[in-house]
Amino acid sequence: MSRFWNKRVHALDPYVPGEQPKLTNLLKLNTNESPYGPSPRVLEAIRETATDDLRLYPDPTATVLCETIAKRFGVTTDRVFVGNGSDEVLAHAFRALFHDDAPLYFSDVTYGFYPVYCSLFEQPFKQFPLNDDYEIDINAYDGPCGGVVVANPNANTGLALSLEQIETLALRHPDRTVIIDEAYVDFGADSAIELTKRHDNLLVVQTLSKSYALAGLRVGFAIGSPELIEGLIRVKDSFNSYPLSRPAQAGAIAAIKDTDWLEEITARVIASRKTLVPELENLGFQVLPSCANFILMRHPAHPAGSVASALRERSILVRHLSTPRIQNWLRVTIGTDEACTRLIDALRAIILTNRS
Amino acid sequence: MSRFWNKRVHALDPYVPGEQPKLTNLLKLNTNESPYGPSPRVLEAIRETATDDLRLYPDPTATVLCETIAKRFGVTTDRVFVGNGSDEVLAHAFRALFHDDAPLYFSDVTYGFYPVYCSLFEQPFKQFPLNDDYEIDINAYDGPCGGVVVANPNANTGLALSLEQIETLALRHPDRTVIIDEAYVDFGADSAIELTKRHDNLLVVQTLSKSYALAGLRVGFAIGSPELIEGLIRVKDSFNSYPLSRPAQAGAIAAIKDTDWLEEITARVIASRKTLVPELENLGFQVLPSCANFILMRHPAHPAGSVASALRERSILVRHLSTPRIQNWLRVTIGTDEACTRLIDALRAIILTNRS
Repeated sequence: MSRFWNKRVHALDPYVPGEQPKLTNLLKLNTNESPYGPSPRVLEAIRETATDDLRLYPDPTATVLCETIAKRFGVTTDRVFVGNGSDEVLAHAFRALFHDDAPLYFSDVTYGFYPVYCSLFEQPFKQFPLNDDYEIDINAYDGPCGGVVVANPNANTGLALSLEQIETLALRHPDRTVIIDEAYVDFGADSAIELTKRHDNLLVVQTLSKSYALAGLRVGFAIGSPELIEGLIRVKDSFNSYPLSRPAQAGAIAAIKDTDWLEEITARVIASRKTLVPELENLGFQVLPSCANFILMRHPAHPAGSVASALRERSILVRHLSTPRIQNWLRVTIGTDEACTRLIDALRAIILTNRS
Repeated sequence: MSRFWNKRVHALDPYVPGEQPKLTNLLKLNTNESPYGPSPRVLEAIRETATDDLRLYPDPTATVLCETIAKRFGVTTDRVFVGNGSDEVLAHAFRALFHDDAPLYFSDVTYGFYPVYCSLFEQPFKQFPLNDDYEIDINAYDGPCGGVVVANPNANTGLALSLEQIETLALRHPDRTVIIDEAYVDFGADSAIELTKRHDNLLVVQTLSKSYALAGLRVGFAIGSPELIEGLIRVKDSFNSYPLSRPAQAGAIAAIKDTDWLEEITARVIASRKTLVPELENLGFQVLPSCANFILMRHPAHPAGSVASALRERSILVRHLSTPRIQNWLRVTIGTDEACTRLIDALRAIILTNRS
């Protein structure tokens, strides 16, 4: 604590940085990164920005990027907002679009930044427990709220709501913003982007970090009614006139355009998931039916913590989350087929060793 | 206005985007960008990040970049903070380090974002008028304050405080954060970085957008006591775990290391300024003695607005600011010698035409 910090800083919990061990032959299945690289067109577009033009400010409104996203998803450009990763887009949305006269609704197992943003912006919130199948029970999301945020597929379970359920949520809270955080949607769930045309309170947030394989570039975007987008722009402009760098804008434009690459690498991840899940089940794991590039799994005879430690000894990192509801589960990113085989071999050895 | 916006958004003034005309043969002397490109090593470093590794998140703590900055300026790494341009660094500093029990002090002519951040973070403020020579009168900055922010050289005048004056400010408010915003310091003023070692309330903020010729990359940094830096980190981590992209970190590392390039291109700008000012004075302009990569000038016989319009007709953009105290002045970025010659020729023609 310091006398220079104001009361806002004192209220924040200190941050604990994630594990970044320097192991040889490390297999990182703990941060849901893509096992495949981005489109070669993206790499070329970024290289092409490395010129003397870097002396000039980027386009403050990222017009061409917004137009590219608009065209790709069949909406008008005034329905598109971009930011430094979906984390920044979400932070602006929490700051601009939720009301503190009633609690924000979200589930007890979901993206860990939601309660952090609530604390930062003094937004009251209410968390609803997942049902016994770890699904979001939208019937519970009733009564006066300051807004709703749903990760779909849900972070850390991989389970998805249907578009019908999302539409029900939007209709139930017509005067409040409903955010659908679609970080993982390209791996097997349905996007609510079409619904934003009919529901002016619905904001869809996506990222280029997962399915576009661009976690290192920091680009995310939101699609929704022009009035939601204008609220985001007003807040963004009061922080920083030039948020997205030239390499980020150029790379993102190329990534959004190359739909073949997106389909190709997401299809590969989906195929690997389809192969991996029954193999895990053969080893006795229970696996939630995931629509994401990760799976949540647990073993009746082997505590999650000891499985994670044993994998770590074999230089494989998976995520053991502290969320109470899922603390005996492990979240495992889908890697290449080679990575999946290495994971299965390691798990088989761990389970056999502990059994003997 | 929208029912979805909360009270924070309603309180913000709508943003008016800056002028981005598409003129042929345009000479942009309105946004203080470098007339020279960044170091070739920066371009190479950015190109080298265009690989499959972009699928991986960047280093969340930007360790190598912070170490590079620390080494360059002779401080320890726990005294360095980096962000997406100095605008983001400043926004985090306003959020974390100023107290709302007393007004923040800054001058009536300075960087336009300071009052915007105050409005955003509900920080009361008091603006002190520049003296008759357009200098900051530090004797006025007395009494209980929530903090102090000084642009040095000052934005829009180019005039600089001495290190003695900055030390006086730091000593006068030992329990409050004093920010020295050194966006333009490399063009002729003295940096207060050394003073941060003796004064734990002093935070120096710099940007790579001007003297490093990297406005398009969006990198800024702060240097100060470990407790000031920790306050910034705590706030930053509650927004976004991974703020700086891989190309931004790699490019910034190369830029900070190439001190020869920095010296070369800032020396060229300083030399051009030295040639330009007497030529402007010969045309009858009054020019403030600038330590920055821009000058503030006015003509006793020609109103600033009409000179700016006449330059615009000749495809030369300069900045005519609306700040009351300097509304009859023009802010002109120092370009290449060729650009300076074109400016002088245009001004001579404008003045002769209007005289005849």
